[in-house]
Amino acid sequence: MEAELDELVQALRCLPGVGAKSARRMALHLLERDREGARRLSRAVDEAVARIGHCSVCRTLTSAETCSRCADPERDSRVVCVVESPGDVLAIESATDFGGRFHVLLGRLSPLDGIGPEELGLDRLEARLQAEGVEELILATNTSVEGEVTAHYLAEMAARHGIRTTRIAQGIPSGGELEYIDAGTLAHALSGRREY
Amino acid sequence: MEAELDELVQALRCLPGVGAKSARRMALHLLERDREGARRLSRAVDEAVARIGHCSVCRTLTSAETCSRCADPERDSRVVCVVESPGDVLAIESATDFGGRFHVLLGRLSPLDGIGPEELGLDRLEARLQAEGVEELILATNTSVEGEVTAHYLAEMAARHGIRTTRIAQGIPSGGELEYIDAGTLAHALSGRREY
Ligand SMILES: [Zn+2]
Ligand SMILES: [Zn+2]
Repeated sequence: MEAELDELVQALRCLPGVGAKSARRMALHLLERDREGARRLSRAVDEAVARIGHCSVCRTLTSAETCSRCADPERDSRVVCVVESPGDVLAIESATDFGGRFHVLLGRLSPLDGIGPEELGLDRLEARLQAEGVEELILATNTSVEGEVTAHYLAEMAARHGIRTTRIAQGIPSGGELEYIDAGTLAHALSGRREY
Repeated sequence: MEAELDELVQALRCLPGVGAKSARRMALHLLERDREGARRLSRAVDEAVARIGHCSVCRTLTSAETCSRCADPERDSRVVCVVESPGDVLAIESATDFGGRFHVLLGRLSPLDGIGPEELGLDRLEARLQAEGVEELILATNTSVEGEVTAHYLAEMAARHGIRTTRIAQGIPSGGELEYIDAGTLAHALSGRREY
């Protein structure tokens, strides 16, 4: 195979769920049928990698110092929903009418992997709890073992500041990844949250 | 959603088989977990689009004037295998020990879509038949209606030059796309080719 084509096929395999056959199919599609789409893809990847970093307040992905949700004065800062990843924020936003604020951990507590409170920057969340008049912390970490451990740790942190915590309802299948749950189940889980 | 992230998700949807959910998942994966992979992908797409064109002899994808197969003096130029797309060349090369030459139509005859012999550059194939001492033309177009019509047209062209034609065996499911057939079926179909 030509070197540039081979490299394109290999590079496409960094995408999740793309094996050798799909990568070859994608590469040939781009070169034979959609070179304009290919150029657009390359530009979009470059722009995103160069500009998108993490919000200084909630740590979700954004190209600004502060993301659009944190900058929006209409959102209720008394309720903060804690999730593991930026994808969880997008999933909750598109599935529910949650109008509060978010905090993204960019991971979960996992002592065996050396991921503790410092690695997740939980001091920043604690500073928000003190500074922003938070009254309810919604624990929307995944229902995996690490997600539950993380939720437990966050509940203790909130308790020290006299803040109420809720946990999204266990309608989500055990061990499931929040980001890929269907909208109905997710909406149900958020509205059915209970005291933690 | 942030503009750059939204644009990346949209751009990823130009890939075949990638819907809204997969595109979002891919974009978040690149930004959260594999920025080096993202940069490599962008570079590979740019390089491939800038450098890869069509072989001046057989019309497959290549970054050179003449592809590596046409430039290889070891390949038997008395046997030419005609396929519809560069992906078919790769499929046959990886599934069989065919050691002859290829010709890529970059399409198939489809009068209803205004694709005739000129659009497929069949004059170039005819020139090869005359110039290269071809003794057998293997018709490996797809088994779709258009593929069969194309094979029939090519057989008549070869007959005018006194060249024997064979058709790859119909072990391939009717209407199937050659490019995505499993290796065993494809190898069987090539070795079982018969007089056309
Ligand atoms: Zn933010
Ligand atoms: Zn060639």
